[in-house]
Amino acid sequence: MSDTDRPVRAALVAIGDEILSGRTREGNAQTLARWLGARGGDLCEVRIIGDDAVLIGETVRTLMPLYTHIFTCGGIGPTHDDITFAAIAQALGQPMIVNTQAMARLEAWYSAQNQPITPERARMAEMPEGVRLIENSASGAPGVVLDNLYIMAGVPRIFSAMLESLDQEIPRAAIRHSRAITAPGLPESRIAGALNRLQTEYPDIAVGSYPIDGDEKGVTVVLRGMESEALDQLAEIVANEMRLLGIEPAFRDHTEA
Amino acid sequence: MSDTDRPVRAALVAIGDEILSGRTREGNAQTLARWLGARGGDLCEVRIIGDDAVLIGETVRTLMPLYTHIFTCGGIGPTHDDITFAAIAQALGQPMIVNTQAMARLEAWYSAQNQPITPERARMAEMPEGVRLIENSASGAPGVVLDNLYIMAGVPRIFSAMLESLDQEIPRAAIRHSRAITAPGLPESRIAGALNRLQTEYPDIAVGSYPIDGDEKGVTVVLRGMESEALDQLAEIVANEMRLLGIEPAFRDHTEA
Repeated sequence: MSDTDRPVRAALVAIGDEILSGRTREGNAQTLARWLGARGGDLCEVRIIGDDAVLIGETVRTLMPLYTHIFTCGGIGPTHDDITFAAIAQALGQPMIVNTQAMARLEAWYSAQNQPITPERARMAEMPEGVRLIENSASGAPGVVLDNLYIMAGVPRIFSAMLESLDQEIPRAAIRHSRAITAPGLPESRIAGALNRLQTEYPDIAVGSYPIDGDEKGVTVVLRGMESEALDQLAEIVANEMRLLGIEPAFRDHTEA
Repeated sequence: MSDTDRPVRAALVAIGDEILSGRTREGNAQTLARWLGARGGDLCEVRIIGDDAVLIGETVRTLMPLYTHIFTCGGIGPTHDDITFAAIAQALGQPMIVNTQAMARLEAWYSAQNQPITPERARMAEMPEGVRLIENSASGAPGVVLDNLYIMAGVPRIFSAMLESLDQEIPRAAIRHSRAITAPGLPESRIAGALNRLQTEYPDIAVGSYPIDGDEKGVTVVLRGMESEALDQLAEIVANEMRLLGIEPAFRDHTEA
């Protein structure tokens, strides 16, 4: 999952007390993982932290040199608990300024709704100096790029819209393909030996084994690699191992749970 | 959310390529957050990493001194990609041994199903030296405690069963209460000024503001604190601010999305 020769090795920092309190289930990680995967990029790490300026700053500063792209989501809205821009500016030693381009975008967005720019709305244009705006078709809230840092919205619909606008600029690479083979009722532990052997024989394919709901309920084997033909070949071998154990397997789309 | 005087300030490390590839949506974080919250504990940070022994080791070693309890989930099953025990043993300088108590538990579990202990099943009893087992009513797979590290299963049903068995030993503290007040159709940015003022007036209550699906769709204000009466009082004030803006609010259970 983290070959160092891949052009996009990304991390996500999801920011928000509402996730850590259990109120909200984090979902942008899966959205980002699939979006990157479809473009040949890898999501290598996710961190979920609260609305804590010091921890936001430390986390971003730690991750920036480790990965090619750092995405953050959450904390760029108009309320007092939206502190992501200020926390990152502080951590990177950038002054906070009013970004005139962001302000123009907010004015256009709210004026189209016959709404005024209140001080709270204007607050969304207070950003670290030196950023580039991310297009956002879903709302007036500006996301920004600063070095290899992509500071985005937490609301899933807006996060997705911002991602889509990065489609042209994200570096592409060959896509990692996958095959999933499911054997209902086959304990993972019964096929474990064969999978271990096959992993050794096929070092270029990642062989993942996932119990459906514990060892007794069945297993899904997921194969991931760059070569479709090699994957098809190994999928057939895995399927035959399952048949040898008395279970007729199903080939499933890899995005299914 | 991370007062340093709370007895449980926990972190979760979720381990598995299947989460970072987007195949699986992580869900144990929410389970843990709610379980801790009901016992007066705080989940302070979550990290999601792949099946990478070095990163598993580094992550655990970094977090152990920062938080009171570190939970891990994933990678303790019978297959070659289950490397959590070995990665942690390596990182902490503990030898890997066959844990006789874990082996006895596996033997009892599989013998109850008239199944033999294969070498792959026995592999689940290979663990760092010096651990204590976690009870697990949902499967034979042993979770373990090592210092302040709780090494648990990734399958949600089994993760939950292991958590339940820790009910007696987790330190308890006063529960943080919450109130959620929702104003459909009220832009978050319109109530932002009032919320900022109220946060300053009520420093012992965390005032969180969450747009429902972007600024235009409405807002949920979540109040969190130790004193029920103070929360009820502030909830009424927030509701009145919403009424002043022409929206009749709804009081919602804080666990709703």
